[in-house]
Amino acid sequence: MAKVSLKELADMLGVSVSTVSKALRDSYEIGEETKKRVLEMADEMGYRANPYAGHLRHHQSRTIAVIVPKLTNNFFIQAISGVETTAFDRNYHVLIYVTHEDFRLEERILKHLQNGRVDGVIMSLAVTTKSYDHISELVQSNIPVVFFDRICHEIETAKITTDDFASSFNGTDHLIRHGCRDIAFLSLSDNLSIDYKRKQGYLEALHKYDIPVKEDRIIKCHGDEKSCYRKIRQLLSSSNPPDGIFASVETLALTTYTVCQELGVKIPDELQVICFSNLPTAPLLNPPLTTISQPAFEMGKQAATVLLKHLEKRRTAIPNENIVLKSELVVRGSTKS
Amino acid sequence: MAKVSLKELADMLGVSVSTVSKALRDSYEIGEETKKRVLEMADEMGYRANPYAGHLRHHQSRTIAVIVPKLTNNFFIQAISGVETTAFDRNYHVLIYVTHEDFRLEERILKHLQNGRVDGVIMSLAVTTKSYDHISELVQSNIPVVFFDRICHEIETAKITTDDFASSFNGTDHLIRHGCRDIAFLSLSDNLSIDYKRKQGYLEALHKYDIPVKEDRIIKCHGDEKSCYRKIRQLLSSSNPPDGIFASVETLALTTYTVCQELGVKIPDELQVICFSNLPTAPLLNPPLTTISQPAFEMGKQAATVLLKHLEKRRTAIPNENIVLKSELVVRGSTKS
Repeated sequence: MAKVSLKELADMLGVSVSTVSKALRDSYEIGEETKKRVLEMADEMGYRANPYAGHLRHHQSRTIAVIVPKLTNNFFIQAISGVETTAFDRNYHVLIYVTHEDFRLEERILKHLQNGRVDGVIMSLAVTTKSYDHISELVQSNIPVVFFDRICHEIETAKITTDDFASSFNGTDHLIRHGCRDIAFLSLSDNLSIDYKRKQGYLEALHKYDIPVKEDRIIKCHGDEKSCYRKIRQLLSSSNPPDGIFASVETLALTTYTVCQELGVKIPDELQVICFSNLPTAPLLNPPLTTISQPAFEMGKQAATVLLKHLEKRRTAIPNENIVLKSELVVRGSTKS
Repeated sequence: MAKVSLKELADMLGVSVSTVSKALRDSYEIGEETKKRVLEMADEMGYRANPYAGHLRHHQSRTIAVIVPKLTNNFFIQAISGVETTAFDRNYHVLIYVTHEDFRLEERILKHLQNGRVDGVIMSLAVTTKSYDHISELVQSNIPVVFFDRICHEIETAKITTDDFASSFNGTDHLIRHGCRDIAFLSLSDNLSIDYKRKQGYLEALHKYDIPVKEDRIIKCHGDEKSCYRKIRQLLSSSNPPDGIFASVETLALTTYTVCQELGVKIPDELQVICFSNLPTAPLLNPPLTTISQPAFEMGKQAATVLLKHLEKRRTAIPNENIVLKSELVVRGSTKS
């Protein structure tokens, strides 16, 4: 079906473009009879309003962007699902951008969004992001930003996180109560909000049991997969390996499993493993993986709900608010019980 | 930073709006000196072109939609990654829609896209989609559609698939060569192109070895998770269980694993399992899962490449083409070797 323009519709009906436009918007200025004629003709000719024309009038694209560091990660997928479901219900469209953990790419994407392609942004920071000017600029362009998981404290807005400190404390406490005395913490990067809090929770649990902190047990794995693999393999094949692993993120626990398989290290007898993870196959791994599961879908839903509520009220400045949802420790075979 | 309009820029420079607009588009009608003045002022005032204004002129949104039946599925995530990477490289934006396997929702989404929000669509059909008028209408509105994985033969366009028949034949052949004589085929739905071909491959392998086909060994699992679980549990707890499972999709193999765990059925000794899957944790499962891995990322990349090539040439009708990529049989512990 060829597209019909407003002008063509108007010509066919013998009325002005403005009359057609007003009739389609159900304006009080147009009589019922005319409205009926216009709607019938529009229907017959398959006329559909151009969504971007509406945008120019209302400065609303009814589109939001979700910016994540990675797509191939169960946490982010479930969070995006939460955003998508909420947005669809409210008749919003969702653009997806992936920073691939690259600060420069994150900057480019945000610059791109300043021109009004979207009404608002939901984001989780890249591991390499250490300055936030690109985000401030976006907010100052009247495009509100809501953070989830990897947040930026410096920006005044809504931030959806889980209880990273408490969950990490409980997870480490669980390892210690089941016999671990030398736990390595696998970290993504110090400058990530979540990683910092998770490390603090780990340190607090060591403190509770008067276990001395060893700096060389805090392993920074922020490089590519191969370099993380090398670091974990080096740790576990040393003459003095740890008896427990707390992995800040899922991939580091999976690499630990791979290395243990290769080296013949028995989980949980020789090494207990716990991690933050939303892996659907956690119960089917060998052995089943003990996880701290984040309410990822719910976090995405909350982020979208807060953002869309503000957009619909046409308020672009979102007041500072920390929404903290609870994660759940799910004990399985990778830790002793 | 408040937004500056073209009109305001023009006023500040003492030139017409048309001059500013042409200068920003690097038109030959405007002298270099004026262009320089306009660009400097635009830069200073933080002027950014409205992307949708450009769209109205050029009928190009530089946005494509990806429509998938599910987000929480490794195959679709990897395919979306392939689309996203390709689109970003070419300066296109990607809208994501999820049909949740629901034909009515798929129809609604496509109707929505007819009005020009996107330049083109990449999609994989919902399991419940049995008629294709909504897709024909979209194509007739000059919005080209490229299919991947779950395709529609009835529509003339590019279709990216894998060698489903051959892969399925090889997978079943592998099971038979390792001792299986009674293999159940777990199917999503007959009316899915991929499911049909996979079943044909399975039947062909049975035929090769003169193994009789039993209709009750073809299990249709197109309902919700619970009903699939019940069907698989019923199959494996019967007095006469199969000795092999060929799962058309990943989730059905994972449910098989869960049921085997519950019933104490030993994989691969009592039951060998194989499935189409892009599960990153397949090597870490108990036992490691033998998979037919599809080149999902590459399929997404190809779909986007074909679509964008046609959009950039301003040709909207994409000629019929079947692009078939090879899947790979990865033998692991869930089958005997």
